[in-house]
Amino acid sequence: MRRRLIGLTSTFFVLLLSVQPGLIRAEDGYQLWLRYLPLPQEVRQSYAGHLKAVVGPNLSSRSAQAAVTELQKGLSSMLAEPVGTSDGIVAGAVVLGTPQSLPLLATLGLPLNDLGREGYLVRSALVEKQPVTLIAANSDIGLVYGAFELLRQVQTHQPIDSIDRLEAPKVQLRLLNHWDNLDRTVERGYAGQSIWDWWRLPDIVDPRYTDYARANASIGINGTVLNNVNARPEVLTDRYIAKAAAVADVLRPWGLRVYLSVRFSSPVDIGGLATADPLDPAVRQWWRSRADEIYSAIPDFGGFLVKANSEGQPGPQNYGRTHADGANMLAAALLPHGGVVMWRAFVYSEEDPEDRVKQAFTEFTPLDGQFAKNVVVQVKNGPLDFQPREPFHPLFGAMPRTPLMMEFQVTKEYLGFSTHLVYLGALWEEVLEAETFVQDGDSTVASVIDGTLRDYPLTGMAGVANIGTDRDWSGSPFDQANWYAFGRLAWNPHRSSKAIAEDWLRQTFSTAPEFVGPAADIMMRSREAVVDYMTPLGLTHIMGTGHHYGPAPWVSDLGRPEWNPYYYHRADSEAIGFDRTPSGSNAIAQYAPQLANRFASPATTPDIYLLWFHRLPWDYTMRSGQSLWQELIEHYDHGVAEVERMQADWAKLEPWVDAQRFDRVSRLLTIQLREARWWRDACIAYFARQSGLELPEGARPPEHDLEYYQSLEFPYAPGN
Amino acid sequence: MRRRLIGLTSTFFVLLLSVQPGLIRAEDGYQLWLRYLPLPQEVRQSYAGHLKAVVGPNLSSRSAQAAVTELQKGLSSMLAEPVGTSDGIVAGAVVLGTPQSLPLLATLGLPLNDLGREGYLVRSALVEKQPVTLIAANSDIGLVYGAFELLRQVQTHQPIDSIDRLEAPKVQLRLLNHWDNLDRTVERGYAGQSIWDWWRLPDIVDPRYTDYARANASIGINGTVLNNVNARPEVLTDRYIAKAAAVADVLRPWGLRVYLSVRFSSPVDIGGLATADPLDPAVRQWWRSRADEIYSAIPDFGGFLVKANSEGQPGPQNYGRTHADGANMLAAALLPHGGVVMWRAFVYSEEDPEDRVKQAFTEFTPLDGQFAKNVVVQVKNGPLDFQPREPFHPLFGAMPRTPLMMEFQVTKEYLGFSTHLVYLGALWEEVLEAETFVQDGDSTVASVIDGTLRDYPLTGMAGVANIGTDRDWSGSPFDQANWYAFGRLAWNPHRSSKAIAEDWLRQTFSTAPEFVGPAADIMMRSREAVVDYMTPLGLTHIMGTGHHYGPAPWVSDLGRPEWNPYYYHRADSEAIGFDRTPSGSNAIAQYAPQLANRFASPATTPDIYLLWFHRLPWDYTMRSGQSLWQELIEHYDHGVAEVERMQADWAKLEPWVDAQRFDRVSRLLTIQLREARWWRDACIAYFARQSGLELPEGARPPEHDLEYYQSLEFPYAPGN
Repeated sequence: MRRRLIGLTSTFFVLLLSVQPGLIRAEDGYQLWLRYLPLPQEVRQSYAGHLKAVVGPNLSSRSAQAAVTELQKGLSSMLAEPVGTSDGIVAGAVVLGTPQSLPLLATLGLPLNDLGREGYLVRSALVEKQPVTLIAANSDIGLVYGAFELLRQVQTHQPIDSIDRLEAPKVQLRLLNHWDNLDRTVERGYAGQSIWDWWRLPDIVDPRYTDYARANASIGINGTVLNNVNARPEVLTDRYIAKAAAVADVLRPWGLRVYLSVRFSSPVDIGGLATADPLDPAVRQWWRSRADEIYSAIPDFGGFLVKANSEGQPGPQNYGRTHADGANMLAAALLPHGGVVMWRAFVYSEEDPEDRVKQAFTEFTPLDGQFAKNVVVQVKNGPLDFQPREPFHPLFGAMPRTPLMMEFQVTKEYLGFSTHLVYLGALWEEVLEAETFVQDGDSTVASVIDGTLRDYPLTGMAGVANIGTDRDWSGSPFDQANWYAFGRLAWNPHRSSKAIAEDWLRQTFSTAPEFVGPAADIMMRSREAVVDYMTPLGLTHIMGTGHHYGPAPWVSDLGRPEWNPYYYHRADSEAIGFDRTPSGSNAIAQYAPQLANRFASPATTPDIYLLWFHRLPWDYTMRSGQSLWQELIEHYDHGVAEVERMQADWAKLEPWVDAQRFDRVSRLLTIQLREARWWRDACIAYFARQSGLELPEGARPPEHDLEYYQSLEFPYAPGN
Repeated sequence: MRRRLIGLTSTFFVLLLSVQPGLIRAEDGYQLWLRYLPLPQEVRQSYAGHLKAVVGPNLSSRSAQAAVTELQKGLSSMLAEPVGTSDGIVAGAVVLGTPQSLPLLATLGLPLNDLGREGYLVRSALVEKQPVTLIAANSDIGLVYGAFELLRQVQTHQPIDSIDRLEAPKVQLRLLNHWDNLDRTVERGYAGQSIWDWWRLPDIVDPRYTDYARANASIGINGTVLNNVNARPEVLTDRYIAKAAAVADVLRPWGLRVYLSVRFSSPVDIGGLATADPLDPAVRQWWRSRADEIYSAIPDFGGFLVKANSEGQPGPQNYGRTHADGANMLAAALLPHGGVVMWRAFVYSEEDPEDRVKQAFTEFTPLDGQFAKNVVVQVKNGPLDFQPREPFHPLFGAMPRTPLMMEFQVTKEYLGFSTHLVYLGALWEEVLEAETFVQDGDSTVASVIDGTLRDYPLTGMAGVANIGTDRDWSGSPFDQANWYAFGRLAWNPHRSSKAIAEDWLRQTFSTAPEFVGPAADIMMRSREAVVDYMTPLGLTHIMGTGHHYGPAPWVSDLGRPEWNPYYYHRADSEAIGFDRTPSGSNAIAQYAPQLANRFASPATTPDIYLLWFHRLPWDYTMRSGQSLWQELIEHYDHGVAEVERMQADWAKLEPWVDAQRFDRVSRLLTIQLREARWWRDACIAYFARQSGLELPEGARPPEHDLEYYQSLEFPYAPGN
């Protein structure tokens, strides 16, 4: 066995490179998709004459330095030889420039106007008569994004002889939402503690923050909300602002702004005021003063994220004011500094007896047009809560005069935590491609999110992060793909989730088609699998109480109706499902008429939403000719079979994966299969009991009786 | 800049080696003291003719494999060339053997009888006429310890031409106590989450567990209690036993046994019984059955650690039984399998009005001789609770017929968490070397712990671990030294803490005398520094309530007297200190007469314990001729000055330390200095208020007034 060491011109990083085919170095996943392993000899040769040096004349910002450094680091490592910098433009160089740093760009006829502030162009070009690979942008952060684009092309072995890539983000705010608490626990976190070491900040700044920033920049994420939407007021004290500022300093060169979640009652909690009424002058002054303080520490602070009057959080309604009153008050404090308010639409009241999935629409649509210009309303993809499948949220398309941004959940609160392989790209693509039918032509959810449908001045997409202190960041190798896919979709909500999966696989594991094809297939099928073994045919929210781990459709004794899984399926001896037609809660009326009509009848409702919208007898005849009961069991069986297939398919991919990650995924699939069977068996045992029906001929009986499944308890489930 | 890559014969590890002087690779601390960096050329040359191969004929156990693998890995890396294995004995080899594997050992006249089961001999010898470095032991685990001994010699550049090292542990149970909860929080943990990923065990076994085992084996630790002494009952369910078994499987080859903390009321909590009375037959049967279940999963399970009838934990006294009744009942369940019960003496009742520091002695000495033979009573080093300084616990020496083991706290609950540099080796040495005077001759605490004083059949030392998921394991570079020192002292309680510090520094940073000397000086002075800036002259337990962070001597309003810092110093306008002479609580009577007499008068009491034993007027004249008030302030000033000096001394050591760890320590010292000043100022402000005295001429006034210090709150302090 022989290995080679690559000497590099830069002193601060070193890599060990294994170039012998068939010998794959164990990896712990820390490097994510930025591994920069040495390319195979033939691929390296294909880049001969290119990538000889990195040249960025007149660039001096920390962002530009980051772009140059990342290119040097990545290219040196992948090409297995030092790639230096040069003062002058030389043949074969990678040249970075903005109109300010490289005035000759103006002579090249480049479509710089199409790039905006963050876009980039990566193009083979003649510059000063030298053939080079040009990375051009209007700002230094565009150069960072362009650098990562070029690196991705090389990582995935793409030819660059006549490269011509132009990209500009279609969404302005591309943010992670960390549900990280100040005590370093993470709500719905399944990958260790919060990476934010609040206690030791600002003195101790973990080098990991830089790698976090690099990873995010590489997929286009440009902001991060550091703390949980269930916010503690102390985050607005000087002590914590200084801590946030230290994080912001690390993230800034990589184009990430820092945001904070704030508690609406902070003026009372920590400000010594008697009220948090948004129309009270002292309250308004208090928020202005806090905003001023934040901006003096973090000049490019992004703004506030607010969960108000939802699940017990305080809000303007406590004072008889509206969401708009509350949001606008905060917006006024941030406006002089250029900050935004992201006001969450995830509200459901502790008192309102209305169908829970209707409440956000009911509360928010009357406020359309009443929000300040630097407010954006943040709406979860579905009207319930990050389920394996929901129809899209009816607010999308329904607030033409209020910018709405998307909230996806990257962490898999309801989809098996970090132990189930579920590629969320497929779920998000389904949502983004859904037609709202609010007007003719393209009226997809994506067209709402990218602002084209309603000409929104502000656009955004937020992902509830799945990041923690686990060495591999996300708790499992394939959960890294969800972080990656979120970033790529936030940049361009029209991108294909399958293409994203393939890019991720090539960067993260191997470019071999024999690997990428089957692995992408596993990923793309994984989302339907989890729907089938957890909540098929439009079932929803039947997970264990509180922690949301495992099946618990039987729970029906909690204080409020909508806390109970039973509320969502209502299975009894007659029927199963939630009637959301006019004979029931009439939630379908919140959709555009074309959709509402489709959802009004089971016959025209897609099977995937059947029991979401309809309450149907067990012997209802499905499109297949089978009864609902038969088909429900068939879906559960299919979900389990799909995991068995994933396991078998993964086993065949061993030659292309290092031992450590191969083993980790294999073990996780073992857990997933065991839990898929548990889901199937527990749900079938329960629905059989409720319906009083026998299992259909040939159906495998559950392994245990219902009482066994009901007896299981998980007091130390994570993330709760 | 040039670097070299060292090819290794083994496929599962790779190292990047920087051999250019002056160029020190950044390190994140994960490797602890097992870095195995390539030796300087001249040192490598000094080993020419040695360390050519690793030979272990007829060895097949996983322990022997571990020893061989570790030697290959370490030697290959340090010598910068592959060190292979050989079937036959060759000149210059490292030869491992036990009497079973290498019968010719019997012909070499080795003192194998002195080694016991775990000891080793590392000696230059002629074997089959070949000059070799022999590692001999009576068991394969002895070979592991011997391998680490040889590696340590090479790491610290010692000559091995005529090496002759014989070591056998002087203490049997050398255990870490993890105060790790099943939800992965760590009580008094300041280094991230628990490394035990209970949720994903047993399916997912973190590779880190192996490195944990290696690190512990390298310093002689042979057992680990996985969970918090404030134990949850679920740890005894089948589900958690399977998880513990998976950990035990990883640790076993490295000589570590797994132990569990158990909750005394478990038969009621999870067993469905109505009582946990230790004399109840059903209770006894329940524990036997649980023990049988554990041993069927973990054949070498170590035993139970129990905190009972202390700080609200249930225990035998709930049923009118004694500690001995409780311990013996558990011991009976474990005895058939060879397990032990470690019964903690840290008890203080919620009702007993007696001086808290007296209670353990009062409760336990009457039970001397009543414990079963597989019970050992685990006693904290001092009678209070892991303070910066306490006199040794009077139980040591006072229970001649009951094995007592030491409980030290490696995590620094009361000594600045993981942000203050405090080398605990100095503290532990002070305790171990303390004379108990219970009989003539050597009657030190160490002689109690190693069993020589009382001929204990069981001996042990436990360290409350400072280990977490932080990349550097312990939260700071120098806190690794406390883990290391604990292991080395548990192996041999008579070892010099300074020599241990020097070994650790050489292995962890650099062997350069210009580094080791000053760095060891920083470490050795650090403990007195923290005493001076926190609790000089015998003051104690004046830390913040609950979290124990920062000064709070003023707290006096908590429910029970001994919860209040005020209880421990009682400062008022007249005097300060706790009278433990016959005119007060008479705690001194718990010590041997010679000591009791010494402590009876302030004039004969060492200054370091002055206010622990005596209540004295502020104008009491100290040995120096100064007043107590003056000298108290002088100590606080000295503590701060010492941290300033540590900071200055560390700054000079930059040439010998990699940038990442140098910077981390520098930043931590900044925190420590800030907090040392805070401690000094807050305590002086408070004691000035209580005494009504002016500051002495020239003394620097506190930066803020007392009310400021009293207003500080730390709701998210870690470890609480």
